[in-house]
Amino acid sequence: MEFLYTYETLKLEFPLAEPEEARYVILGVPFDGTTSYKAGARFGPTLIRQATLNLESYVLDYDLDIAELPIADIGDIAVVAGDPRKTADRVRETIEELKRVNPNAIPILLGGEHSQTLGAVEALRPKSYVVFDAHLDLRDSYEDNPYNHACVARRIAELGVREAMFGIRSGTREEVEFAEKGGIRWVHARDYDFDSFVELVEPLPEPVYLSVDIDVFDLAIVPTTGTPEAGGLGFWEVIEAIEWLVENKRIAGFDIMEVAGETLGNPTALTAAKLLFYFIGAMEKMGKL
Amino acid sequence: MEFLYTYETLKLEFPLAEPEEARYVILGVPFDGTTSYKAGARFGPTLIRQATLNLESYVLDYDLDIAELPIADIGDIAVVAGDPRKTADRVRETIEELKRVNPNAIPILLGGEHSQTLGAVEALRPKSYVVFDAHLDLRDSYEDNPYNHACVARRIAELGVREAMFGIRSGTREEVEFAEKGGIRWVHARDYDFDSFVELVEPLPEPVYLSVDIDVFDLAIVPTTGTPEAGGLGFWEVIEAIEWLVENKRIAGFDIMEVAGETLGNPTALTAAKLLFYFIGAMEKMGKL
Amino acid sequence: MEFLYTYETLKLEFPLAEPEEARYVILGVPFDGTTSYKAGARFGPTLIRQATLNLESYVLDYDLDIAELPIADIGDIAVVAGDPRKTADRVRETIEELKRVNPNAIPILLGGEHSQTLGAVEALRPKSYVVFDAHLDLRDSYEDNPYNHACVARRIAELGVREAMFGIRSGTREEVEFAEKGGIRWVHARDYDFDSFVELVEPLPEPVYLSVDIDVFDLAIVPTTGTPEAGGLGFWEVIEAIEWLVENKRIAGFDIMEVAGETLGNPTALTAAKLLFYFIGAMEKMGKL
Amino acid sequence: MEFLYTYETLKLEFPLAEPEEARYVILGVPFDGTTSYKAGARFGPTLIRQATLNLESYVLDYDLDIAELPIADIGDIAVVAGDPRKTADRVRETIEELKRVNPNAIPILLGGEHSQTLGAVEALRPKSYVVFDAHLDLRDSYEDNPYNHACVARRIAELGVREAMFGIRSGTREEVEFAEKGGIRWVHARDYDFDSFVELVEPLPEPVYLSVDIDVFDLAIVPTTGTPEAGGLGFWEVIEAIEWLVENKRIAGFDIMEVAGETLGNPTALTAAKLLFYFIGAMEKMGKL
Amino acid sequence: MEFLYTYETLKLEFPLAEPEEARYVILGVPFDGTTSYKAGARFGPTLIRQATLNLESYVLDYDLDIAELPIADIGDIAVVAGDPRKTADRVRETIEELKRVNPNAIPILLGGEHSQTLGAVEALRPKSYVVFDAHLDLRDSYEDNPYNHACVARRIAELGVREAMFGIRSGTREEVEFAEKGGIRWVHARDYDFDSFVELVEPLPEPVYLSVDIDVFDLAIVPTTGTPEAGGLGFWEVIEAIEWLVENKRIAGFDIMEVAGETLGNPTALTAAKLLFYFIGAMEKMGKL
Amino acid sequence: MEFLYTYETLKLEFPLAEPEEARYVILGVPFDGTTSYKAGARFGPTLIRQATLNLESYVLDYDLDIAELPIADIGDIAVVAGDPRKTADRVRETIEELKRVNPNAIPILLGGEHSQTLGAVEALRPKSYVVFDAHLDLRDSYEDNPYNHACVARRIAELGVREAMFGIRSGTREEVEFAEKGGIRWVHARDYDFDSFVELVEPLPEPVYLSVDIDVFDLAIVPTTGTPEAGGLGFWEVIEAIEWLVENKRIAGFDIMEVAGETLGNPTALTAAKLLFYFIGAMEKMGKL
Ligand SMILES: [Mn+2]
Ligand SMILES: [Mn+2]
Ligand SMILES: [Mn+2]
Ligand SMILES: [Mn+2]
Ligand SMILES: [Mn+2]
Ligand SMILES: [Mn+2]
Ligand SMILES: [Mn+2]
Ligand SMILES: [Mn+2]
Ligand SMILES: [Mn+2]
Ligand SMILES: [Mn+2]
Ligand SMILES: [Mn+2]
Ligand SMILES: [Mn+2]
Repeated sequence: MEFLYTYETLKLEFPLAEPEEARYVILGVPFDGTTSYKAGARFGPTLIRQATLNLESYVLDYDLDIAELPIADIGDIAVVAGDPRKTADRVRETIEELKRVNPNAIPILLGGEHSQTLGAVEALRPKSYVVFDAHLDLRDSYEDNPYNHACVARRIAELGVREAMFGIRSGTREEVEFAEKGGIRWVHARDYDFDSFVELVEPLPEPVYLSVDIDVFDLAIVPTTGTPEAGGLGFWEVIEAIEWLVENKRIAGFDIMEVAGETLGNPTALTAAKLLFYFIGAMEKMGKL
Repeated sequence: MEFLYTYETLKLEFPLAEPEEARYVILGVPFDGTTSYKAGARFGPTLIRQATLNLESYVLDYDLDIAELPIADIGDIAVVAGDPRKTADRVRETIEELKRVNPNAIPILLGGEHSQTLGAVEALRPKSYVVFDAHLDLRDSYEDNPYNHACVARRIAELGVREAMFGIRSGTREEVEFAEKGGIRWVHARDYDFDSFVELVEPLPEPVYLSVDIDVFDLAIVPTTGTPEAGGLGFWEVIEAIEWLVENKRIAGFDIMEVAGETLGNPTALTAAKLLFYFIGAMEKMGKL
Repeated sequence: MEFLYTYETLKLEFPLAEPEEARYVILGVPFDGTTSYKAGARFGPTLIRQATLNLESYVLDYDLDIAELPIADIGDIAVVAGDPRKTADRVRETIEELKRVNPNAIPILLGGEHSQTLGAVEALRPKSYVVFDAHLDLRDSYEDNPYNHACVARRIAELGVREAMFGIRSGTREEVEFAEKGGIRWVHARDYDFDSFVELVEPLPEPVYLSVDIDVFDLAIVPTTGTPEAGGLGFWEVIEAIEWLVENKRIAGFDIMEVAGETLGNPTALTAAKLLFYFIGAMEKMGKL
Repeated sequence: MEFLYTYETLKLEFPLAEPEEARYVILGVPFDGTTSYKAGARFGPTLIRQATLNLESYVLDYDLDIAELPIADIGDIAVVAGDPRKTADRVRETIEELKRVNPNAIPILLGGEHSQTLGAVEALRPKSYVVFDAHLDLRDSYEDNPYNHACVARRIAELGVREAMFGIRSGTREEVEFAEKGGIRWVHARDYDFDSFVELVEPLPEPVYLSVDIDVFDLAIVPTTGTPEAGGLGFWEVIEAIEWLVENKRIAGFDIMEVAGETLGNPTALTAAKLLFYFIGAMEKMGKL
Repeated sequence: MEFLYTYETLKLEFPLAEPEEARYVILGVPFDGTTSYKAGARFGPTLIRQATLNLESYVLDYDLDIAELPIADIGDIAVVAGDPRKTADRVRETIEELKRVNPNAIPILLGGEHSQTLGAVEALRPKSYVVFDAHLDLRDSYEDNPYNHACVARRIAELGVREAMFGIRSGTREEVEFAEKGGIRWVHARDYDFDSFVELVEPLPEPVYLSVDIDVFDLAIVPTTGTPEAGGLGFWEVIEAIEWLVENKRIAGFDIMEVAGETLGNPTALTAAKLLFYFIGAMEKMGKL
Repeated sequence: MEFLYTYETLKLEFPLAEPEEARYVILGVPFDGTTSYKAGARFGPTLIRQATLNLESYVLDYDLDIAELPIADIGDIAVVAGDPRKTADRVRETIEELKRVNPNAIPILLGGEHSQTLGAVEALRPKSYVVFDAHLDLRDSYEDNPYNHACVARRIAELGVREAMFGIRSGTREEVEFAEKGGIRWVHARDYDFDSFVELVEPLPEPVYLSVDIDVFDLAIVPTTGTPEAGGLGFWEVIEAIEWLVENKRIAGFDIMEVAGETLGNPTALTAAKLLFYFIGAMEKMGKL
């Protein structure tokens, strides 16, 4: 199957399914035009895929081999240089194309800037948005651009999607107030625990779009991301939350965003790759597919 | 003096002049929203200024101390995230502000993407554009954006500015044909020598805007730039050309663009800093001020 | 206001106050002449200031905007190459100059070697010295130099200042014995918890000088510091202690030392920058100003 | 004393003993011919030794100076390029040479690929093998080579040595089944705690060979190792287990493997060096020598 | 078409031909098991392909678009860990498979260790072997392995292939003597010029296999290769020789070997990518196809 | 033989001679306390020695095996932290110790800061000082320290030693005037050629001390040194000058200084190592021993 806006790139190494028949469809978004501090998220999709070479496809925790599942990899979006909105349009249209031929497919974005999550959410129209992130991303506009990565959760909230946020440790007064007015609940990284996750997510309507801005992890684990922050979550904290989520809520789509850097096998990329396999594994083993 | 779009940042360390009285006015443009390969030109202005700490302000070749000259540093442009056109508008307006209070000042841009040169040229309206670059930058549009760094020489040519290019070793058939039709002459890096420079530049009308895309140098010298290319020019080749140029042509403005990387004192930044001091030194010593 | 020994450098980006009116006055000390293992603390002050660009000035935890506070940045000390004592003299004299015109200002050193804390303590004459550090720094002399960074706590103890140390995981028998004889109490990183902090700090007389040798954190968080050590503290552990300290004790001065590396946005620098904002935020919100 | 297959290299810096009289004998194995993801373990022995320069020889926790103990360093094995089996033969023969002249010496391998542990185990013939590792290393063959680092625990099990594994978070179905059939017990990194360690190790027969594949630690602590994995153990978790082990079991040999990278003082090397000093310190203080 | 020993990986980004119809067939060999100094050539094929994204497919010098040519990319060889001979067997067999279905195809190896060139030469049986290399590679055995990369030219000479070597600046007395006895002529990097190339290559019988060990270039251009050497050739020196060679001799095969490193867009990879496009361009424009 | 101030460290790997019988005696000086821009020369001696592992001991150009010569390596000087004068005293005393037992030995310093050359010159009392350097190093004092690396040539001139300098491209007006008054001749890197070298060196009295500040090379070749400068010399230019020098003048001592960085096998270290072997080889082959 050909898509209008994607091109082939490095792919996952095990035998892959066609998009029409896959349960999971991977799409790279090598966009970083509005990154605010450290550049380089453009290499995120390549870095994550290459980092899967470091991993066994077998996930010990679930006694399950990722390589035996119907997964497709449709390559990367051809970005519109510097324009997060037009690039997100291509993400949206690509996912719409996909859903027309395979309505049950779970799209998985590998990014690239968090701004691109908007395109996926527009295509999938989930009822709720659950996000792990160091940042609220609720600004109305940032550096004169309403489609900047720092505004993505605001744009999504404006679509009527309910939101819950975890691992937050950065924001502005304006964002905090917007969250408060809009009923958007979030948990500070200092206060995060499993119970806080369940408490906020349980009441959310299905289906849920799950987004992991990789900067939710401590900067020791993810030193190369756009805006690394000290004091983040640990790897298993996020995995345990995802396990609960896929067991208890129907999932519309998933993404791992803001992976950056130039070095193959860097910690950020390796963490993202392992997270990808855990998400797929957990979906298969305990997910409400 | 306050400018609308600039903010303070790291500055040159020696005593600086006010913009109203300076002969040279430095302006950083930390924009890299449309970089096509390696990101990170956003840190270019900071890296260049910090790299000047490695240099003597005294330039041996001219028996002249840069620190004793009237140089202003008006900080960096507040970029419009991802939008090269709007950011270049701010460059243009800032230089216009400057020229109103100090018509004789020579603006010096430190970048940042080559796309931003357009703003300077629009403000200064030189008759000719002399550029050292590995790339023709004559595309009509790139990644759907006509203000991408790969189009800057085309936009400038469309303003009626005459152009000559040196150190070229990358382009497309479309660009070569555009150059041919438009009478834009260029010298391949393989063929470059001092005589080829003089031959093409001599007939150009004054004043001249001089732009150095740092990727004109061999990638061994400038490993961290947006699109490094093997087979580039050497340091003294460019300096000798600049010496001839400032001696023989009136200069409207100057820039050093596409400096990137994250490491203080990296070779690209050190080369750019030294080039900056040589430009100012040569202007003083032999320039048609 | 002009200081004898400082020069301008990269500064915090938000509007800054004059030293005479500031509540917090930042001073960089780019000295690393006696570093024992990894060099590069000279770039510490620049790296920390640049890393603040990654941060919101608003601190979520305190609902408070750092950028709205009266903070001055008086630049960096001109170091005496290789001489920690003479450089520390300049730190002392600069802080004395400052205190003459603004007796209530809280000086904040950004380093640079830990040896330079001595100058600040000599100027401020606190009753107690609370330090987070992987090392005891209680040697009488190191590499034939009594003003080496490994001796700073000893020199301070000899001034009659009471000391308490946290996160320690490296020292010599001689240092342990000196601590024992001198009543200097310390907590090993393995044994550290909030209660151990309160227990040791509670009885200390005011005012207190607070010093954070960045190597107190785990080497995963701060890989580029002079002597990184495995098994260190986490980010929130230090923040919680600081919150208690500023709430319960009057603070004479503060520093973040031993930040090193050459890369903008490295984890050590980002951690230091965030720590800086938390210190100021906590002082404002809960401090005994 | 001369060994057939070793040559001199960088050594520990304090006064060293002769192999005949030492209680601990260090041997480097700069082999990385079959590394599966990130190369560079060949520099492991040099990196670890150089990283000891960052450490006090005095170990605070045990009030004991490593530099005062009889430790020998017999240099590095001359590897057989690309051949893990022949290189491991040299490891085995070198340890046999050593044991002939000093039967009580505890050999300590610094690696280098985990494949080389086989040579040490063959020479020392322990009853049990306790290993900290992210990986099961129980494959029958990997990339067509039965002596690949991913097979070392299988080869050791085939010698009749009892095994227990900790910090595991990667394996294949085949390996899990082999472990189950062979009575090899292991603890997942998610489930690891001190009690789980004691429970599995207590019943094991003596003497015990202890192996630390450095990748057992979280990839934030050890970013440069052959196959870094997120979600690993912390420094003190491993130290506490080692303390219990040396107090309760007789130790036949010890190794720290898979240290890699090219940078002096990198976190992986620093962690390995500190682990080395803790092992020796704990052996002296609480070990069943 | 399926090959026995290859698997898919990152590919060149423009539309590619099937191996049966291609004029040029690219094959990666991610082997570095016997590298003698710096590891990491395993990432060479991925790094080179990814670096082509930095290049225009249009080669200015030849007015020719690489993307319009029939080029196939058959992925990477599945290596036999640590075994250069068995891996080279797979290279040989894969090229034999290819030549059976497409006898006119020019195979292009991207490596990976120089040892793998042997497999290509065994499959193609050229009359002559022209190599750019800093090293003679004429050892009988190295680190006990006759198929080490340092022996490849010797193994090829033993097949009766005539040899000429350029850019040499490292070897042993044994190798020099072997070259002398065997009539293998070589030019030291200090003495290299275009005439020396033509003089040695002109008398060689056709077809010629051309091999570029990337370390022939100065270590400033190629800092990440297995054994970088100061004093190497420049980019255009090698290109000019290749232009002459393809114009005057029939080419059996080509390779670019010993590209290493972990960083996307590193100078070694960028140089190799540009060299690849020049080789193909020159073959088309002036080659004896 | 024991020296008062040296300790063992990584040594050259081939069989070494005792200092009493050696023709060449290597001494590391891991001092970088007064480095002005980039720190890290402390690792220079280790980096250079480790980089020799990349080299054949056989030097092609001279048909001579370095490993067969009587070379001693007496380790590194124990530095006095931050004090260039006291550390240089130890260099002086160590060389004096050496010369008492072996008056014909040629000491070879591996540095470490250029400031340490003073100690060697004081011990050896040559008639002339020939130096390759980007900098004049003729300041009277720098950062308040007369023994700073930027003053070393001045201190040496004050001893009555005649001086000639090559590759210069940085200095101050004060230094230029001092050179002029003192009859110190130097050649700018732009003007350097072999003839300029011979012209200035020929009249100098013997014996000659030869010093290579590694920053004389272009910053592309030596990116990690204290003060890298664009526009430097090439590798063979320096080798050819050394060959002439050793053939025509008696050599008292030699050094390679300012090698820095933290990465094994970095270009600066590799260049220094190769230079070391060429110096020894040329001395043997054509030197006036
Ligand atoms: Mn986000
Ligand atoms: Mn974020
Ligand atoms: Mn350009
Ligand atoms: Mn360009
Ligand atoms: Mn300290
Ligand atoms: Mn410390
Ligand atoms: Mn293992
Ligand atoms: Mn492992
Ligand atoms: Mn080679
Ligand atoms: Mn080779
Ligand atoms: Mn110098
Ligand atoms: Mn010097």
